[in-house]
Amino acid sequence: MKRIAVVTSGGDAPGMNAAIRSVVRIGYTKGIEIIGVYSGFKGIIEDQFASLLPRDVSGLLEKGGTILQTSRTEEFKEEDVQYKTIEKMKKQGIEGLIIIGGNGSQSGNLALAKKGFPVIGVASTIDNDLWGIDYTIGFDTAVNTAIQAIDKIRDTATSHARTFIIEVMGRDRGFIAIDAGIASGADIVLIPEIKFDIDKIIYNIKEGIEKKKKHHMIVCAEGAIRANELEKIIESYLDIDVRVSVLGYIQRGGSPTRFDRIIATLFGERALSELIAGNSGKVVGIRGNNIVIVDVADAVSKYKKINYSLYNLVEEVSV
Amino acid sequence: MKRIAVVTSGGDAPGMNAAIRSVVRIGYTKGIEIIGVYSGFKGIIEDQFASLLPRDVSGLLEKGGTILQTSRTEEFKEEDVQYKTIEKMKKQGIEGLIIIGGNGSQSGNLALAKKGFPVIGVASTIDNDLWGIDYTIGFDTAVNTAIQAIDKIRDTATSHARTFIIEVMGRDRGFIAIDAGIASGADIVLIPEIKFDIDKIIYNIKEGIEKKKKHHMIVCAEGAIRANELEKIIESYLDIDVRVSVLGYIQRGGSPTRFDRIIATLFGERALSELIAGNSGKVVGIRGNNIVIVDVADAVSKYKKINYSLYNLVEEVSV
Amino acid sequence: MKRIAVVTSGGDAPGMNAAIRSVVRIGYTKGIEIIGVYSGFKGIIEDQFASLLPRDVSGLLEKGGTILQTSRTEEFKEEDVQYKTIEKMKKQGIEGLIIIGGNGSQSGNLALAKKGFPVIGVASTIDNDLWGIDYTIGFDTAVNTAIQAIDKIRDTATSHARTFIIEVMGRDRGFIAIDAGIASGADIVLIPEIKFDIDKIIYNIKEGIEKKKKHHMIVCAEGAIRANELEKIIESYLDIDVRVSVLGYIQRGGSPTRFDRIIATLFGERALSELIAGNSGKVVGIRGNNIVIVDVADAVSKYKKINYSLYNLVEEVSV
Amino acid sequence: MKRIAVVTSGGDAPGMNAAIRSVVRIGYTKGIEIIGVYSGFKGIIEDQFASLLPRDVSGLLEKGGTILQTSRTEEFKEEDVQYKTIEKMKKQGIEGLIIIGGNGSQSGNLALAKKGFPVIGVASTIDNDLWGIDYTIGFDTAVNTAIQAIDKIRDTATSHARTFIIEVMGRDRGFIAIDAGIASGADIVLIPEIKFDIDKIIYNIKEGIEKKKKHHMIVCAEGAIRANELEKIIESYLDIDVRVSVLGYIQRGGSPTRFDRIIATLFGERALSELIAGNSGKVVGIRGNNIVIVDVADAVSKYKKINYSLYNLVEEVSV
Repeated sequence: MKRIAVVTSGGDAPGMNAAIRSVVRIGYTKGIEIIGVYSGFKGIIEDQFASLLPRDVSGLLEKGGTILQTSRTEEFKEEDVQYKTIEKMKKQGIEGLIIIGGNGSQSGNLALAKKGFPVIGVASTIDNDLWGIDYTIGFDTAVNTAIQAIDKIRDTATSHARTFIIEVMGRDRGFIAIDAGIASGADIVLIPEIKFDIDKIIYNIKEGIEKKKKHHMIVCAEGAIRANELEKIIESYLDIDVRVSVLGYIQRGGSPTRFDRIIATLFGERALSELIAGNSGKVVGIRGNNIVIVDVADAVSKYKKINYSLYNLVEEVSV
Repeated sequence: MKRIAVVTSGGDAPGMNAAIRSVVRIGYTKGIEIIGVYSGFKGIIEDQFASLLPRDVSGLLEKGGTILQTSRTEEFKEEDVQYKTIEKMKKQGIEGLIIIGGNGSQSGNLALAKKGFPVIGVASTIDNDLWGIDYTIGFDTAVNTAIQAIDKIRDTATSHARTFIIEVMGRDRGFIAIDAGIASGADIVLIPEIKFDIDKIIYNIKEGIEKKKKHHMIVCAEGAIRANELEKIIESYLDIDVRVSVLGYIQRGGSPTRFDRIIATLFGERALSELIAGNSGKVVGIRGNNIVIVDVADAVSKYKKINYSLYNLVEEVSV
Repeated sequence: MKRIAVVTSGGDAPGMNAAIRSVVRIGYTKGIEIIGVYSGFKGIIEDQFASLLPRDVSGLLEKGGTILQTSRTEEFKEEDVQYKTIEKMKKQGIEGLIIIGGNGSQSGNLALAKKGFPVIGVASTIDNDLWGIDYTIGFDTAVNTAIQAIDKIRDTATSHARTFIIEVMGRDRGFIAIDAGIASGADIVLIPEIKFDIDKIIYNIKEGIEKKKKHHMIVCAEGAIRANELEKIIESYLDIDVRVSVLGYIQRGGSPTRFDRIIATLFGERALSELIAGNSGKVVGIRGNNIVIVDVADAVSKYKKINYSLYNLVEEVSV
Repeated sequence: MKRIAVVTSGGDAPGMNAAIRSVVRIGYTKGIEIIGVYSGFKGIIEDQFASLLPRDVSGLLEKGGTILQTSRTEEFKEEDVQYKTIEKMKKQGIEGLIIIGGNGSQSGNLALAKKGFPVIGVASTIDNDLWGIDYTIGFDTAVNTAIQAIDKIRDTATSHARTFIIEVMGRDRGFIAIDAGIASGADIVLIPEIKFDIDKIIYNIKEGIEKKKKHHMIVCAEGAIRANELEKIIESYLDIDVRVSVLGYIQRGGSPTRFDRIIATLFGERALSELIAGNSGKVVGIRGNNIVIVDVADAVSKYKKINYSLYNLVEEVSV
């Protein structure tokens, strides 16, 4: 292959830039021209291409977001748009595409690969919800950001002996909530995957007050229940002062961690090798300590289980 | 004086611990016993006293919140409660009180001083709203926390070319919003002190889009308008994707900055000297580079002006 | 078991406190009394014991260092000291010991286990040098601290177009250097495991200058070569301005990351289970995503290989 | 004025980019073309000019270092070089120059202003050593970086009950050392301005050990004594384990704080106004809360006093 394009798509995640840098620089050493696509899939349709050289990606390891910008791509779900996308790339002499993104973006991978265009995905989303892959780029940073925020909130919670509900990202999945909950010492963690029992929550808080805990911290994924709804429910049961904090978009940004910078670099390298080797319709990720490829159809449609044993630890360590 | 009590009251602020440490250690070198009151003013009524020695306040400089804990004190506004408070302290042999807190807490200062009990306040609130004092303990840290959060959000705003509204603390005053807005490169800053013009905001965003600005950032104090209300208004005028982030409680916590650690140390020292010198009904703060005392009646009732020239700079530097 | 002791030993590592918290709280829920030993192994000899309850370990997840304090323990290598240690513990009714520490400390594990006292180790050292274990508690935090420091130094390196040598910890092993090097975009990484070629380094820098790289960053483990020696060597070959930064002790401290807090919690839990199950002479660690136990004799004496493929990537991504 | 140049010179400081951004954007709104000079004064001689527009300085508020790069400029001290510099600028139609930098760089200001070329300086150096100016851009960030590093080191110092010497920047002046020392809870602070008494240091450490202080922290400016020399001296008097950490270049980099971002923005604005008003040979700084101008001859040659009352507080609060 002589010319490969790289695109970031869907929600941005810390480490996307590190993956772009890896693709550009390793492509360069392999004698492949790397074409950056701007603004996600729609950038292909709109001819937003630019050749990227090693110096163009200097200083990117530490930078959150994506210099290629990104977009949500509803219209890309239509077949004729997909065909047009392939046509546009062929006109540019692009022989393969690397898609850096999460679940929605890798559906684009599946669609293009089915139509015969060589595509390899790089698993990158703070949601960490791709099947067959332990960690996607951005998750580690997002959880670290969340726990640093919760550490700050605990200062206030302790100072006022208050109950706090902290809402973290996760519309459908509780990966961020479980890790952030365990790592920040939450007393209760609520996730979309497990129906919660309000009586148990109330009991737990009451018991904590009796045990003279200085504060109570509930971490909930936005998809389990919205924090302000839970606040009202708890205040209807107990005569206590409940406060709410919705961490929101700070979880998406910021400088990536060691882990995200390193896997981004490794994923980028592997995506290139796979394209060169003639593979398509795969997503690059990590399993255990191994960089692996997963069939994109499996990655986006099979159900990735949460770590129940980690989840169950919440109660034991918050006694 | 042989025995002085110290209490933290109202909302916690980063640097309160540093002020406690300063009072305890400098008190010790002066041969004064320092009594910590737990849980704010109500701790006095409830006899929550403990003698504090230098080793009890080790490691506190870097710690957010307040180890003495704090509380809001509605009932303390009643005269008989105030008399009881003085009585309780006298019973403990306490000859003076240092109140670390903001506007509400210093009203307690005023009440007790009027009744003849020696009290000196230490200006500490992230709201920075005490008249006659340029900076209160906690403000610098709160704004630094806010701008670090906004820096992260800008990664996403830039990556998606989106308009973002970031709501910061400030029910009545815009001090945090102005400083956070200027320091994070906000295009628009909304504060309670100045009525905003929605047409101008819309025009400003439109113009920015034409100038190909990658994103728009609006920083609003919660007291100017709630972010989600503003979101709806903007989306009713413009066909753009607006996102909202409410920074909330993270602004209260965290390890204090250089500035807050140093002024906390200096304020604590000065509060002791003032009590020893026989002063009462004052609040210790900073004006320019000088540690000053302000009559508590003025501090809590006179209106502290915002910095209009700084506010007006927002537009000029966001072209 | 009714009473189990926990000790931290050797160099402190971020996450040790999280492991102590986990042992204390999970022990409590299992009905086991947890005895904290202060000041490392010598604390056993000196009867520095204290019973720890769940509230004693509040707020520890986010705290670097070890509240139990630690010490280097040369004298503990003598057999009679080891026998005395066992005797002292038996006198306290202690039936098992959890040793949180790295290579040196786990040699104590081996010694006591051989003499029949039940001991389980928790792998915790920023050096990450225990065989059979992918990650020890503290390593992830140490590398994150290092890369945040190097990010700051890169600001100056870029501003002055300078060559910088950054020395990271690692007397015998290059784990920190490799990960910090890849994650901070180092052009050259020097580790104790691989003899370096000064001609190649000089060539690499020269070539970079010709390619108009804004700066050059060399990350070296202290055990490969001291930074100031390398500085002199490079300046003897090239007429350039080389600067040196020795990161030093900042790498040991600080609030632990998501990863270190979580594995510390899991390791603590597993160590308790192993003692209860009657195991001894093992070290708890992580391999892939699984919490595992390793024979302590293997953990401390077998040679853990570095990740050569990661190491070799340095050159490719710094073109 | 129609065309004004801006240059960063000498050691880089966090906030220089924010000052560049301010000059470029406010210049733009005033209808003045801003020319960026690359690589410091030598960039003028070498015709390294580029016109800067508002979008060229996007995202700069949070970025450490200087995008214009900088250099030390020994040869600029020669008169003929200074004349050539003026000539070069005039050829470009440049009518005024803004020099962002510290003591050395502002000497260039003095030289050019004396020769009739309109120059205004912007006080920016982490050393904070310009007379008549309370704070220079970069100092607040540098000290905050230092105290965050020392906070990490304290984790280890406490865990091992060790004495630590932390060397901070400051070849000639102790501004960083005093503020970092007070704000990090140092027991002893050594600065170039005050001769230290080794007997007193030894006594202080001994006394601390007797008072069961968990650790001792000495903060020394590099210009007072090098940390490793002091280590040897202390170890020759006392049988204790002393460790050393030289913070070094991390103090120069990193994202600027609230304070540095705001004063950088204000200084940039004022520098432009002064040039437009026909002033020259001044340096813009802050005194109290007022943005002020100082005669450059005074700024670079008069002696700025340290804050002795702050310095004297070290002992009182480290009891």
